Amino acid sequence: MKKELCLLREQMKKHNIQAYLIPTDDFHGSEYVGEYFKCRSFISGFTGSAGTLLVMEDMAGLWTDGRYFIQAASQLAGSGISLYKMGEPGVPTIAEYLKENLKEGMTFAFDGRCMMESNADVYREIVTENGASIETGYDLVDAIWEDRPSLSKEPAWILEEKYSGKSSREKIAVIRQEMEEKKADYFLLASLDDICWLLNVRGNDVLCTLVVLSYLLMTQEEVTWYVQSACLTDDVRAMLEKDKIIVKEYEAIYEDLEKIPAGASVLYQPSKTNAALCDKIADGVNQIKDTNPTEYHKAVKNSVEVENERIAHIKDGIALTRFMYYLKTKAIENGESEVSLGDKLVELRKVDEHYVEESFSPIVGYEEHGALPHYSAKPETDRKIEEKGFLLVDTGGHYLEGTTDTTRTFVMGPISDKEKELYTAVLRGHINLSAARFLPGCTGRNLDILARTPLWDLGYDYNHGTGHGVGYLLNVHEGPNSFRYRKMATKNSDCVMEEGMITSNEPGVYLEGEFGVRLENMVVCCKDEKYQPFLCFESLTMVPFEKEAILVERMTEKEIQWLNEYHATVYEKVSPALSEEEKAWLCDVTAPL
Amino acid sequence: MKKELCLLREQMKKHNIQAYLIPTDDFHGSEYVGEYFKCRSFISGFTGSAGTLLVMEDMAGLWTDGRYFIQAASQLAGSGISLYKMGEPGVPTIAEYLKENLKEGMTFAFDGRCMMESNADVYREIVTENGASIETGYDLVDAIWEDRPSLSKEPAWILEEKYSGKSSREKIAVIRQEMEEKKADYFLLASLDDICWLLNVRGNDVLCTLVVLSYLLMTQEEVTWYVQSACLTDDVRAMLEKDKIIVKEYEAIYEDLEKIPAGASVLYQPSKTNAALCDKIADGVNQIKDTNPTEYHKAVKNSVEVENERIAHIKDGIALTRFMYYLKTKAIENGESEVSLGDKLVELRKVDEHYVEESFSPIVGYEEHGALPHYSAKPETDRKIEEKGFLLVDTGGHYLEGTTDTTRTFVMGPISDKEKELYTAVLRGHINLSAARFLPGCTGRNLDILARTPLWDLGYDYNHGTGHGVGYLLNVHEGPNSFRYRKMATKNSDCVMEEGMITSNEPGVYLEGEFGVRLENMVVCCKDEKYQPFLCFESLTMVPFEKEAILVERMTEKEIQWLNEYHATVYEKVSPALSEEEKAWLCDVTAPL
Repeated sequence: MKKELCLLREQMKKHNIQAYLIPTDDFHGSEYVGEYFKCRSFISGFTGSAGTLLVMEDMAGLWTDGRYFIQAASQLAGSGISLYKMGEPGVPTIAEYLKENLKEGMTFAFDGRCMMESNADVYREIVTENGASIETGYDLVDAIWEDRPSLSKEPAWILEEKYSGKSSREKIAVIRQEMEEKKADYFLLASLDDICWLLNVRGNDVLCTLVVLSYLLMTQEEVTWYVQSACLTDDVRAMLEKDKIIVKEYEAIYEDLEKIPAGASVLYQPSKTNAALCDKIADGVNQIKDTNPTEYHKAVKNSVEVENERIAHIKDGIALTRFMYYLKTKAIENGESEVSLGDKLVELRKVDEHYVEESFSPIVGYEEHGALPHYSAKPETDRKIEEKGFLLVDTGGHYLEGTTDTTRTFVMGPISDKEKELYTAVLRGHINLSAARFLPGCTGRNLDILARTPLWDLGYDYNHGTGHGVGYLLNVHEGPNSFRYRKMATKNSDCVMEEGMITSNEPGVYLEGEFGVRLENMVVCCKDEKYQPFLCFESLTMVPFEKEAILVERMTEKEIQWLNEYHATVYEKVSPALSEEEKAWLCDVTAPL
Repeated sequence: MKKELCLLREQMKKHNIQAYLIPTDDFHGSEYVGEYFKCRSFISGFTGSAGTLLVMEDMAGLWTDGRYFIQAASQLAGSGISLYKMGEPGVPTIAEYLKENLKEGMTFAFDGRCMMESNADVYREIVTENGASIETGYDLVDAIWEDRPSLSKEPAWILEEKYSGKSSREKIAVIRQEMEEKKADYFLLASLDDICWLLNVRGNDVLCTLVVLSYLLMTQEEVTWYVQSACLTDDVRAMLEKDKIIVKEYEAIYEDLEKIPAGASVLYQPSKTNAALCDKIADGVNQIKDTNPTEYHKAVKNSVEVENERIAHIKDGIALTRFMYYLKTKAIENGESEVSLGDKLVELRKVDEHYVEESFSPIVGYEEHGALPHYSAKPETDRKIEEKGFLLVDTGGHYLEGTTDTTRTFVMGPISDKEKELYTAVLRGHINLSAARFLPGCTGRNLDILARTPLWDLGYDYNHGTGHGVGYLLNVHEGPNSFRYRKMATKNSDCVMEEGMITSNEPGVYLEGEFGVRLENMVVCCKDEKYQPFLCFESLTMVPFEKEAILVERMTEKEIQWLNEYHATVYEKVSPALSEEEKAWLCDVTAPL
């Protein structure tokens, strides 16, 4: 049995806890978590990005999803922890397991800072029904984890107004108006991208996400930012002072929440605020549980942000086009593999002086690896590229001018008719969504089917949304806008598509053991100048598609016209930065079908 | 001032009522209302199908929508009643008007039997906020209306199992299961189509709707039908006895609701149950406000119903195809007009011995009248058909085998390029929705855009849903299935499309003062036999489209293929019933493009 598991059980006994849960979240529900937060991995040995550990006196179980069944089984071997394969028939969810096994009088505990309030509510209900009790104030792992890494405290930096397009002052004024409409005296904000958007600051405390570990609490009079002082440079301090932002220590939020007087009202979003914060709000305080008003304003990019995003995407297009040229001319003779090509792409992006970092972990999947939508090449899975088949590359970068997220499926040599048929279907879906003209009021749920129809016509589908909102130098996945056809309880599926929203358009198809195709541009929602009041999309991404993978006879005239116009724009925007050799090649690659 | 208005004010004074509202509904929220229910028309003189009258001491106002502005203005002239044009800028809604004008201490009243509970709730809130009081027990018009028509009490009749496909017993068992799941001791049902579906009876108490004025209350042990005894034939009585359905007088429901004991629970749908019924439920009774469980089961047609609908649509297709032939060969020389052609169509449908009646008021609109989606030809608007332009015909019939609803836009002679362009766009939208292949979980909101895209691409739209569910010998408009892209609070916009649901597919385009195009088939949702688990639609309607109105070069190959296959089916199903002359013509009309 794993030593750490024994030590945890000792701690549980010491505190009279019969069931202890370790989730994967940080204190802010971030998509990636820093080293400090990897308690589940420390206790269980399982290092995947998603998983929850439940420990009781006579059981220990790790719940994870299909991406990690093999890895988890191998990493858990001999640990004394059983693997619960989420979604498999007969496997209970954690909630179902607890309903069955949490007995009267037992105490169930977790670190409330690492669980969002909406999630904690599910457990509170089970505990009440079962006559057990709940404790959200214990971080039992901290006492065991001797060489625990410290919290990240990278320096924060100012995002200048020429990039943000709007002063923090203006943004705060808008949010104050929304607070007034919702009759909220206080607004508690714990999601890091919302905080950084509001204050026009960026940081580096979360992998691939340019945010600062912090909380924020505001009223009509004051804005208080709770942040580790080590993160604050003199520049940032000066700006905060100028903007009259009060600064307090990161942890001080918990005391301050306790001080909110009875009768006052606090607005917060339960799915983006940890349970420990909510526990601090006194009983007589009126809790307004609603979407963070920052979310919508952050999602609707202003004209400066949109113009910057165009620039960022030309920069990214240059890097990716040069990468494509390299793939076609030198990659095979240079013996490149999935991992080395991921590095190559960073190298090509880094050339730009405004490049900051990758916006997410790169997905570079050759042939059958392309059929794994979340594939991440590791030394042990790495494949050398050969002169055949598809190479799927899904990567993105943060530039001062904005964030990119692009997928192309490249042709490395001869491909089959089936590969061509499915590439064509995915491309047609991508084009039909990109070319949509639609009336105000349409949501991503209305539009999603445009991308799926060519695949559904052939009896294929892809088991993911067609697209997600993209943050501006923040999270690459950002709400509330998205393209998906199913209603999702945890997402705002009825978000109306509005001018300025930036969303990815990424249909795909995955044939297990064979190959995958995904084609992704980022699109910005615009007014249709010719047909008012219609809206349409402008493609931001500037990277060619693979004409040699297209069955032209399957395309409609409208689709061919869209592709030819898109390719002409790619050539116009990207070619000036290329060498003569590259330019000649791009001219050919983007010539009309 | 209108005499009836003065008499109403006397009644109001007598009962100390300061504001009295007269809606258009009957006791069941039916789409059409019988003569007995036309109180608003009796008092105001306005005879339109939609409108609400509010009378106070020093004001009287009629609220109606854009279809009726002209008619209402003319009918209200000199009555002392002002017209409130709904939706026009600056015009308050009734709720807004009451918020402003209902003063503390006033009594606001209406006949609670003629207002659905969900609607009454809106008024209750205003009354409470304004410190007024509410009375829902007065039918003040009854005391004034000397020669008021009596309630309809047409004989009910049995829909045999070869038409309904399921016994009443089986249906009741399913609903009892749902009651158990919802922990409902009683289920109160007031919507007439649900009641008739459940009991396998039909009637003739509401125009174009084969229903019986009645209420129903059921428990796990008993089903009680509250119905006017005059409606019950011996056959029906015998069947009810056999099925152990208790029969009581129509009005007895109100007393019986009062008797439900405290602690029991009653399930009902507030948008389909009148406020007077709900008022009778005692305070200690637990009210479960939810969708009627009958709605879903009524909407998902069983295989017998679907097979019957196929037959009904061939019968209707024969009538409509012969109508089309008549239009093309004799209508103009015979001097036909919109009104006479509506009659002609009934004549052609009546030939079938299972034809019952029209399923809604026919819409026959020539040229610019086609641009009014709800046009109803009257002697004073009637137009003679000439050898040019479009004739829009939207009609339907009830047959024992099912209910039809078809729209075609016929070419009467030379048409313009614009007419052809828009006919083609509407047809392409119709085809794209009809030909959809989609995964289980899709809703009408996901699918709607398929029908709109060809119009949106040209900058046009139609200001109505693309389609509605259709009842089986009940209401031609039936929930919960529909095709529409906007979320609607009053409809179940998230209803998932399921095998057996029958929905109309009717995109259109309306150019005011010029012409209109609408093309409507009814489609049934089916399993896609070739591609599991996909679903698709089968077109039930069997009437040719107008090839001469199509710009073939605008159609995709897929669309042309769909049309050719559809036309081949129409010929196959319809031609055997035609004369040699008609057959030769149909052969030409349905020949491949």
